[in-house]
Amino acid sequence: MQEFTVSGLAIDSANQSPVVLLKELDGDRVLPVWIGPSEANAIAVRLADVEPPRPLTHDLLKRVIDGAGLRLQRVIISEIRLQTFYAELVIEGEGSILKIDARPSDSIALALRTGAPIFISDALFQEEFGVDPAEDPERGDRLRQRLERIDPEGFGDLSL
Amino acid sequence: MQEFTVSGLAIDSANQSPVVLLKELDGDRVLPVWIGPSEANAIAVRLADVEPPRPLTHDLLKRVIDGAGLRLQRVIISEIRLQTFYAELVIEGEGSILKIDARPSDSIALALRTGAPIFISDALFQEEFGVDPAEDPERGDRLRQRLERIDPEGFGDLSL
Repeated sequence: MQEFTVSGLAIDSANQSPVVLLKELDGDRVLPVWIGPSEANAIAVRLADVEPPRPLTHDLLKRVIDGAGLRLQRVIISEIRLQTFYAELVIEGEGSILKIDARPSDSIALALRTGAPIFISDALFQEEFGVDPAEDPERGDRLRQRLERIDPEGFGDLSL
Repeated sequence: MQEFTVSGLAIDSANQSPVVLLKELDGDRVLPVWIGPSEANAIAVRLADVEPPRPLTHDLLKRVIDGAGLRLQRVIISEIRLQTFYAELVIEGEGSILKIDARPSDSIALALRTGAPIFISDALFQEEFGVDPAEDPERGDRLRQRLERIDPEGFGDLSL
C-alpha cells in the first residue's frame, strides 16, 4: 500500500463539486477524489487549522472513538467502482481490529483529526497509476481531463 | 427528564436556517432547535426514510458505535447558553457509561438512526417551558416569536 497525504482542496469547474487532492508521500502522483460540500468543509477547517465555534460531526466521531478507548490506526482508500471511491477505517480496539466501510471524504476528514495515515490500496493504485498512458491512452486522458477541470484557486468560495 | 420526539423539520423564514422541531412525548409542547443545513439533511433523510446512495457521516458514526459493541442509550438536550443548545450522547459500553458532549443536531441525527430516545434535561425544560408567560412576558414572547418565524412548509427546498 502507498501512503498519501492531503495536498489540498479544489473545485471541479465543470460541476462546482469540491475535490480533495491526495498526493503520494514518496512521489508526485495526485489522486483527485470528488466529495460533498459538507465533508469538504470538514476537511477545509482542519487544513486551515480553524476551530469551528461548535464541534463538527467528524469531531464528534473522533470523540466517540477516543471515549471508547479506540484508535484510528489508518484509513485505506480501497477501490473505485462506477466512478465512486470506497474507503475503509481501520480502528484498533483492545486486542482487536475493526474495519468499517466509509466514504473517502469521511475517512479523510477523520484522519486529519486523529493524525492517522491515509493509504491507497494496491489494487486502486494499480488501477489509477499502474498503467502506462501509452498502453491505455483512454485511461491517461480521463485522468488528465479530470485534473484539467480542477481549479485549485476556486476553493476559497466554500463557506465555512 | 422529559422525553421528546422529532415532529418535523422547518425553515426559519427570518434567516433561512433549518429548525428541528422536538415535541413532548406526553404533551403538545414543542421545542424548536436551530441547526445547520448538513445536519438538517442527515435528519431529513431519516424522517423521509430515504436511503442515500452512500452512507452519510451519521451513518458512519452509527457503524463505529455498533462495530465497537457500544449502544446509544439516550440523547439528552441538556442546556441553552447564549441561544445555543447543548446536548450529550449517553453511550453504553460493556459495564460502563460514556457521556459525550455533542451538538443537538448530531445527537438527534444519531438517535433517529439507532432508535435511541431523546430527552430534555429538567433544567432546560424548566427554562423553556416552566415559566408562565404571564410571569415573564418577555420569555413567552421570545418563544412565540421564534415559533412564528418558522415555516414548516418551506423545508422541501432543502436538497437531499
